[in-house]
Amino acid sequence: MTFNMLDFIEKKRTGKPNTEEELKTLVAKTMSKELPDYQLAAWLMAVCFNGLNDDELMYFTQALADSGERYTFPADMHIVDKHSTGGVGDKATLILLPLASCCGASVSKLSGPALGYTGGTVDKFESIPGMNMKLDSAEFLSQVRRIGCAVSGHSKELAPAEGIFYKLRDVTGTVPSIPLITSSIVSKKLAGGAASYVFDVKCGSGAFMKDRVSAEALARSLVGVSKKLGKNAVAVLTDMEQPLGEWVGNAAEVYEAIEVLSGRGPDDTKELCVTLCGHMLALSGAAASAEEGRKKAEQAIADGSALSKFKEIVASQGGDAEVVRHPLEILPKASKKYQLKETKGGVISRLDALSVGEALRALGGGRMKLGDKIDYSAAIRLNKKIGCAVDAGESVIDVFYNDGEKLKDAISLLEGCWSTEASAEKRSLIIETIA
Amino acid sequence: MTFNMLDFIEKKRTGKPNTEEELKTLVAKTMSKELPDYQLAAWLMAVCFNGLNDDELMYFTQALADSGERYTFPADMHIVDKHSTGGVGDKATLILLPLASCCGASVSKLSGPALGYTGGTVDKFESIPGMNMKLDSAEFLSQVRRIGCAVSGHSKELAPAEGIFYKLRDVTGTVPSIPLITSSIVSKKLAGGAASYVFDVKCGSGAFMKDRVSAEALARSLVGVSKKLGKNAVAVLTDMEQPLGEWVGNAAEVYEAIEVLSGRGPDDTKELCVTLCGHMLALSGAAASAEEGRKKAEQAIADGSALSKFKEIVASQGGDAEVVRHPLEILPKASKKYQLKETKGGVISRLDALSVGEALRALGGGRMKLGDKIDYSAAIRLNKKIGCAVDAGESVIDVFYNDGEKLKDAISLLEGCWSTEASAEKRSLIIETIA
Repeated sequence: MTFNMLDFIEKKRTGKPNTEEELKTLVAKTMSKELPDYQLAAWLMAVCFNGLNDDELMYFTQALADSGERYTFPADMHIVDKHSTGGVGDKATLILLPLASCCGASVSKLSGPALGYTGGTVDKFESIPGMNMKLDSAEFLSQVRRIGCAVSGHSKELAPAEGIFYKLRDVTGTVPSIPLITSSIVSKKLAGGAASYVFDVKCGSGAFMKDRVSAEALARSLVGVSKKLGKNAVAVLTDMEQPLGEWVGNAAEVYEAIEVLSGRGPDDTKELCVTLCGHMLALSGAAASAEEGRKKAEQAIADGSALSKFKEIVASQGGDAEVVRHPLEILPKASKKYQLKETKGGVISRLDALSVGEALRALGGGRMKLGDKIDYSAAIRLNKKIGCAVDAGESVIDVFYNDGEKLKDAISLLEGCWSTEASAEKRSLIIETIA
Repeated sequence: MTFNMLDFIEKKRTGKPNTEEELKTLVAKTMSKELPDYQLAAWLMAVCFNGLNDDELMYFTQALADSGERYTFPADMHIVDKHSTGGVGDKATLILLPLASCCGASVSKLSGPALGYTGGTVDKFESIPGMNMKLDSAEFLSQVRRIGCAVSGHSKELAPAEGIFYKLRDVTGTVPSIPLITSSIVSKKLAGGAASYVFDVKCGSGAFMKDRVSAEALARSLVGVSKKLGKNAVAVLTDMEQPLGEWVGNAAEVYEAIEVLSGRGPDDTKELCVTLCGHMLALSGAAASAEEGRKKAEQAIADGSALSKFKEIVASQGGDAEVVRHPLEILPKASKKYQLKETKGGVISRLDALSVGEALRALGGGRMKLGDKIDYSAAIRLNKKIGCAVDAGESVIDVFYNDGEKLKDAISLLEGCWSTEASAEKRSLIIETIA
């Protein structure tokens, strides 16, 4: 069968399915640069409207995963991978990596760099002096085998076709399509070689999915295609109307992760991590159920084994392992502090995650474009979360900064980012679990 | 306001209207090649799904028309233009040009070259020896002023942005969108400078619009935007399930046009032309109503003035005017003839226009790609139309050809292009008029 790109686009435009053969050819010809961008763009836009059915999604995802190197692990190592769709203050991976692996699951985590207003795991870990987040495949695999987990930035060879499609989607207004998002996420997971995936699908103003309906649709799509591809998968819908935890910023989030692993830290961050860890342990066979897994996770925090595992990971990847004992001495800190104070008093009813994420980026804690250097020490501390009472004159947000010009931009983003009412409920973090 | 192409695409994808300013900028930046094709392609595909509202369509059409040269005529000359969406055997323009102008309307006709299975007016006229179909603007305008009509191929400068969009639509599967088709047609009409338009919207297997619903939608869109742009306009929906008239082929259609102008020729071709002419005369003010215009047209055929005007046009554009008296001697003729005969007998119930159009192209009478040379003499004669009785052994289609190899391809397209039943109604040509 010869591949006719025009027929292929027209099928999608008119609501007819594309075949396995066609989707494989599409990806192959995209890799070999045989297809003009304008034809790819037209097909992507048609997918935004007509979607991909379950089979199309599976074939497309598989073809993207097969476009480059694929990690493989021995059959007896049941590797579990955790993916977040991205939020503000989301340091869960920093905690889950040691937590799940010290409870008996093997965890391999390949992360992309942060872009936009959500932080990236690679940047957070890199704020630990000496930490190497550029492991090659051999180093990465050998560390997983040796200590049960590893974390690294993406090698360029992982699902490279996905990168080509992603770049084009970014400049053609074709990003927000559930099947395209799903294929993008799952193709990289597939290439990463894990046997099970736990998806943390964020929902709210600070998330890519702003409403419950679309977040749930994405969660079902992620779990559905993963299972069709022979993987165990669970998705947890979690609240991202306000940032997660107390701290937002690279070094600051490492600090909060160490706090949680030490049995302290904010409740919401801890709740998210023990919940997700429960699922990771259940999927990998290290616990009989998610509930049992959650208990094991709480125990591992209480007995110090999770913190020890964090130290082991840092040491194994060249970082300063003393960070677990003296985080405030070892992590980079900003030189100046600015407080945003409540004027009238009441109960916090809104704390906009998106504005906080953008403010951190304005402070230099995130990237405007790939390649931008990051200020790891820039940080935002949320003294009050939704449902907390606040008096007039109390600081709601503390900003830790180095550059007064950047502070101005951050302040303009943060002013008005919260509201108070006479009363407001605390938000519950876990919205729904989709298995 | 700065123009953000990504916002512009996303508006269209999410169903929000694009503004006049944005659409003007889109066309301007397309002309100056500032926008990558993949972004244009994404927008075009989004338009295929979400359409353009009446205002967007008007602004986009206007911007396309304004992208190059625009013909202008003195205010006292009420020029009428006639446009067909393209069919097989459609020689109406050859007849209407002299017919309407000898009845008092000024007619300016700028045609594109034929591409695909439908013929082009330029190619048909060029089969008359000496006929010049490349008038420059000065020659064209002066002839309209002098004898009331002119016909010419498009100058490249007419709505050049439309050409860029059309080429991209052709390779991105974004051709069949009613607003894109409408803007493409009307922008060229606008640039052509006429004050009124009569649209012949073909409907059926041999037309671009295969069904009544989409043909009617296109007709309403064409008339709607034309009126919004201050033009008089009427659209007539006409049947294209079978080819128009008796002859298909460039020189052969000139012959049929001369026959009709002489008061002979097939009824359907004549019926179409007097109907369309009636509307042209009514719109231009040369008749009080379409009905009166139709009577004037019939009279002009009967008294020979229409044929005289045809001769005048041919002579004015350098063609051999003797063609009106001795068409069979002067027009190019194919050397060989092949007959396709009915085997069982009955009444013709189907005569597929698309197959006939493709067969003429296979014979060399049409183009596979721009620049292909055309065999003007290749022709197909339809001895029987839908609703005609045919005996076993009678010829339904005569093929006039020069090249035996090409004949084979044509035969394989024509075999099976008709069906017979015990009985079948003749088809009525005029389906509906939209004013």
